[in-house]
Amino acid sequence: MVIVNFKTYLEATGRKAVELAKKAEKVHKETGVLTGVAPQLADIAAVAEAVEIPVFAQHVDPIKPGGYTGHVLIDSVKEAGAVGTLINHSERQLKLADISEIVKAAREKGLVSLVCANDPSVTVAVAVLKPDMVAVEPPELIGTGIPVSKAKPEVITDTVRLVREVNSRVIILCGAGISHGEDVKAALKLGTQGVLVASGIVKAKDPYVIMREFAEASKH
Amino acid sequence: MVIVNFKTYLEATGRKAVELAKKAEKVHKETGVLTGVAPQLADIAAVAEAVEIPVFAQHVDPIKPGGYTGHVLIDSVKEAGAVGTLINHSERQLKLADISEIVKAAREKGLVSLVCANDPSVTVAVAVLKPDMVAVEPPELIGTGIPVSKAKPEVITDTVRLVREVNSRVIILCGAGISHGEDVKAALKLGTQGVLVASGIVKAKDPYVIMREFAEASKH
Amino acid sequence: MVIVNFKTYLEATGRKAVELAKKAEKVHKETGVLTGVAPQLADIAAVAEAVEIPVFAQHVDPIKPGGYTGHVLIDSVKEAGAVGTLINHSERQLKLADISEIVKAAREKGLVSLVCANDPSVTVAVAVLKPDMVAVEPPELIGTGIPVSKAKPEVITDTVRLVREVNSRVIILCGAGISHGEDVKAALKLGTQGVLVASGIVKAKDPYVIMREFAEASKH
Amino acid sequence: MVIVNFKTYLEATGRKAVELAKKAEKVHKETGVLTGVAPQLADIAAVAEAVEIPVFAQHVDPIKPGGYTGHVLIDSVKEAGAVGTLINHSERQLKLADISEIVKAAREKGLVSLVCANDPSVTVAVAVLKPDMVAVEPPELIGTGIPVSKAKPEVITDTVRLVREVNSRVIILCGAGISHGEDVKAALKLGTQGVLVASGIVKAKDPYVIMREFAEASKH
Repeated sequence: MVIVNFKTYLEATGRKAVELAKKAEKVHKETGVLTGVAPQLADIAAVAEAVEIPVFAQHVDPIKPGGYTGHVLIDSVKEAGAVGTLINHSERQLKLADISEIVKAAREKGLVSLVCANDPSVTVAVAVLKPDMVAVEPPELIGTGIPVSKAKPEVITDTVRLVREVNSRVIILCGAGISHGEDVKAALKLGTQGVLVASGIVKAKDPYVIMREFAEASKH
Repeated sequence: MVIVNFKTYLEATGRKAVELAKKAEKVHKETGVLTGVAPQLADIAAVAEAVEIPVFAQHVDPIKPGGYTGHVLIDSVKEAGAVGTLINHSERQLKLADISEIVKAAREKGLVSLVCANDPSVTVAVAVLKPDMVAVEPPELIGTGIPVSKAKPEVITDTVRLVREVNSRVIILCGAGISHGEDVKAALKLGTQGVLVASGIVKAKDPYVIMREFAEASKH
Repeated sequence: MVIVNFKTYLEATGRKAVELAKKAEKVHKETGVLTGVAPQLADIAAVAEAVEIPVFAQHVDPIKPGGYTGHVLIDSVKEAGAVGTLINHSERQLKLADISEIVKAAREKGLVSLVCANDPSVTVAVAVLKPDMVAVEPPELIGTGIPVSKAKPEVITDTVRLVREVNSRVIILCGAGISHGEDVKAALKLGTQGVLVASGIVKAKDPYVIMREFAEASKH
Repeated sequence: MVIVNFKTYLEATGRKAVELAKKAEKVHKETGVLTGVAPQLADIAAVAEAVEIPVFAQHVDPIKPGGYTGHVLIDSVKEAGAVGTLINHSERQLKLADISEIVKAAREKGLVSLVCANDPSVTVAVAVLKPDMVAVEPPELIGTGIPVSKAKPEVITDTVRLVREVNSRVIILCGAGISHGEDVKAALKLGTQGVLVASGIVKAKDPYVIMREFAEASKH
């Protein structure tokens, strides 16, 4: 499982978000390996309309319908076509009780929850809340092109070992600096079930080529 | 000028956001009075596609393109079809320096800026930043159905008088509790150029009827 | 173990904070039961100077020494005389990664960490971070005088059972609505090692009497 | 007027905060020029006890007495001995409505309010709220040792000119990079009434010497 976070990169905004998602879908059709995409909120509807791969929101708020101007209601991203949401990305961190509430609300609304964390023990803490997926991403490697799976393999193995002590079912991803197929292969070998990636794809000269590389690496 | 804030009400989410916006457009066609709408972020594209009245975002973040997962990039709401944005709504308040930065960025990107404030002196403070529009809304009246233009007319007259001392061009709106045509009429008489409204329309038995009432009140 | 959170009540500010702490110390001397106090930041030094019972900060920030105007450095509360700190109180909630960082920093600096949480699963999540103490407090009961140990005993028993699955050593407190000795007794019977209390003491007609009642209840 | 912000530097924490404040007081006695100090919250009481120069809090919260664990009540810093408070320092920024509320509360409680801002137009916005003092500090120069009064004199002159259009009485300070007497002299010449300084004093080899230099520069 590869999930591409479009962040707020111009290369993945608006019309370009749709184009990038289509490339991810092409890779899926060609390889059978599923790539999910997480476009900006205003782009979810157009992306979900254009492709049949899983679309994630980058963030939702711990709110019920009502007077919450400028906040992100789960119902709204769901109706726009999202099947899941990132939660607590290191660039959009949340209070702990809010993470818990969003995970519960996502479960009730049938949305896949993917909670991000910065190190092994924090990942265990979020795994306790029983989300569908967790992703460990050392913030100091995010956007650097230095892959966590090579630079800090112990972060991944510690995470997998410790998370499994409290939660046997949660899907474990890793992220930060993942840029090549071999980084993905290394991540899987260390015990994860996939990767969360952003600039490694979005900022690549040819995102299709890299996504294809990721997919091939996931197969073996 | 009437701007309807859809907040995160279910009655104005997704498909229902589009329907409500179409009613606002119908009122515009029938009366010539312009009603703007501010749907949720994930609904901007569908609403802007469906109607020709002005669409506002409810919030944007003070960010440049880049690594800001879960944040709202001006470029993204603009490409989705927004022509303006609310800023600093009482339910989504911002740090002062961020308000300043967003107003500047909106100006550069050609987006109409509408900054909300809670009382006369705070409205003057934001008027100093030279946004296109300001709206004064006493938070204690928001969502109550008790119209600011009747319950606290001095808030409006103070705001108009004090804002005009520092900014002769900014459009001044008021909001909170506005529910009937006569509330709009009172607001205009007190010196504003329009109203910002939410539950008064969204939660009305027949939003079309109330929007039509607002439009008629704006004409005289 | 009873910890009295002085919050920002005027009845426990400044000179009155010192007086209240002295009453807590009196109870300790008379009963042998230890009562800790958590005064406001500006009152820590005077309280710690005046009494020999444990003094907690109400909050510290996840910062190192440096350019963090207006933030709370662990070193500063420690030098002022605090021996521990509340972390993530429901009135001062923190991002998850920050909780983790503060717990680690408290351990390094020799400060007792007491992390608050709003329900059983969130308490487990914080217990994973290996603080010295956790406190579960349903926010809807805080300040009501309706004791969690009577109104929601299952919150306490669930917390104790689930926390013990991941952490056998952490001290477990409960709080919210604790106002009488019998509430304390009930809390201990349900498996906690003590209570976190605020208005039940601070706002009591005679705080000494209630603290004494708490202490007696803790002994049996 | 020189105000030294101790931030959370270890060189100005606890016992060392008192020592530094005593040096500031010595300079005052020798030169007649008033230097204020802004120690950390936990150090206010000890500093205010030790010296007779003005002591400022670095931050207060927009709260009334009550259930606000971990927040900073104006009454508490006042009783600890503070005569004023920084508000909205760039390292502790606030929502606009909160700045307004704190300025009002400070006025009611008889505390001097010093609101910080990052550029001329934001400084005008806060001047509208009628605090006692404002300080303009370009964040990019804070802590650099590159003095705003030399590197960006136009920031200061613009601020003075624009603030005076809306507020003739507020005391205007500037800050960021101020490290030598000549920087102070330049700041005064550009129309300010003083400076806000931090690392330039706190991190100086001999803070007394620099504070004395500042005081002499203020006299001419």
